Amino acid sequence: MEGFKSFLFFLVSALLLGFALVIFVLVWVLHYSDGLAWDGGNPEFNWHPVLIITGFVFIEGIAIIVYRLPWTWRCSKLLMKFIHAGLHLTATVLVIVALVAVFDFHNAKKIPNMYSLHSWVGLTIVILFVFQFVASIVVYLLPITPVSVRAAVMPIHVYSGLLLFGGVIGTCLMGITEKLIFALRNPAYSTFPPQGVFVNTLGLLIVIFGGLIMWIATRPAWKRPPEVALKDQHSFGGSSGSAPPEYSKSDKSDVELNSDAARKRNLKLDEAGQRSTM
Amino acid sequence: MEGFKSFLFFLVSALLLGFALVIFVLVWVLHYSDGLAWDGGNPEFNWHPVLIITGFVFIEGIAIIVYRLPWTWRCSKLLMKFIHAGLHLTATVLVIVALVAVFDFHNAKKIPNMYSLHSWVGLTIVILFVFQFVASIVVYLLPITPVSVRAAVMPIHVYSGLLLFGGVIGTCLMGITEKLIFALRNPAYSTFPPQGVFVNTLGLLIVIFGGLIMWIATRPAWKRPPEVALKDQHSFGGSSGSAPPEYSKSDKSDVELNSDAARKRNLKLDEAGQRSTM
Repeated sequence: MEGFKSFLFFLVSALLLGFALVIFVLVWVLHYSDGLAWDGGNPEFNWHPVLIITGFVFIEGIAIIVYRLPWTWRCSKLLMKFIHAGLHLTATVLVIVALVAVFDFHNAKKIPNMYSLHSWVGLTIVILFVFQFVASIVVYLLPITPVSVRAAVMPIHVYSGLLLFGGVIGTCLMGITEKLIFALRNPAYSTFPPQGVFVNTLGLLIVIFGGLIMWIATRPAWKRPPEVALKDQHSFGGSSGSAPPEYSKSDKSDVELNSDAARKRNLKLDEAGQRSTM
Repeated sequence: MEGFKSFLFFLVSALLLGFALVIFVLVWVLHYSDGLAWDGGNPEFNWHPVLIITGFVFIEGIAIIVYRLPWTWRCSKLLMKFIHAGLHLTATVLVIVALVAVFDFHNAKKIPNMYSLHSWVGLTIVILFVFQFVASIVVYLLPITPVSVRAAVMPIHVYSGLLLFGGVIGTCLMGITEKLIFALRNPAYSTFPPQGVFVNTLGLLIVIFGGLIMWIATRPAWKRPPEVALKDQHSFGGSSGSAPPEYSKSDKSDVELNSDAARKRNLKLDEAGQRSTM
């Protein structure tokens, strides 16, 4: 892997920061707030930030970069797809419980639902996320989908995954802003109370974590090698669609390399390999 | 250009949405709020969202994709650099006035500065943005910088530009959230008053605009053709560094194409061309 040391630095930073996020949100709700419970009160609300940051930020962040871990490049693409989907499924379950917690809390306290920009953007993201999850299972895990369809959808799959992840970060920032304004009354948020400073710091760390994940996910040099990716695509659903030819050093003839069309096709294959790594 | 119709669709959508954002924020402050003035009161605060959305969202969004407009591909790279930098400069001026407006408003009203997550993330982004702007002028506009340095910095330049733009979107969402909670007391934000629904809609449109800009800026097929980009890099600062060879179909020999090292180098050149388009 090109730039392995740099990759390792970013990966370790992201992992440490990811764990730090979970610890920070736990300290927030257990130390500064009213703890965790399922009682219709603030302790039930507190499950919302804990589960969102654990599921939709940390686990989802790992899900995005899991194909890029070079130690997994020996594993089959199918196994990696299951791990990728499994992490998404875990995130989805945590996010749904997080939503139930906040709606239940609102209903118990007779606070209206869905009036804030946080709730509008957040629910839109969750709906699109679940849609993308189900659609991706159909496209990338069911053997009926032609490889040509998989390749055509891949740029949208990757882009919308990263966009939704960025949207989650933005929604977290709105959620933190709302909660601190509502929760910090005496002393007020504007007087720099310890909880305000601590949770602002959590917000900054979420942004940095998002930036690290995005960096790791978009470096061309850190993609899963395309020949492995394409070999699996070919063997998994290749019979039903217009599969690209299997791509390895050994079967590329000089004639192919010398034609402009072939060069373009090879570039496209490289690109498809890159896209399919996220 | 590959996929020109699709490019046109996204570009026109982004432009229409960008204008809509400016109209929405003007309707917000002129119709729903207290208008615009420089009086230490709410009308002075109102310059903050107007200038941020106009400068840091709309103009900055255009600055990011300006190299990708195919009609500009006949222009020299140097001219495009000046346009790119000029749009950034315009954004920077508007953002600084926007910051002065909000600090002035806070000071006049004796509201503390810099306590919220919005202010922490926002000011961090502005400082990093100005740093990136000055550093990029040194690297890409001063003829003293070697081409090798320009190429090495380009991935960071592109990534941090997009990351800061994403951060601006997130910070806008926090700002809207804060302002609506503070401004909407009677009737409260939670009772779905027209201003709340209208400005939530503005928030959603900002997210969609950001998504369109990011999509346009990251499609490999819509990059400025690399041979143009590299030709300019070469002629502009090529004498002082280890410049890559000029890249055009005519000067690539079959021997080069047949060697693996040459293939990798060509891929790198393609990639550098792509990176330099944003």
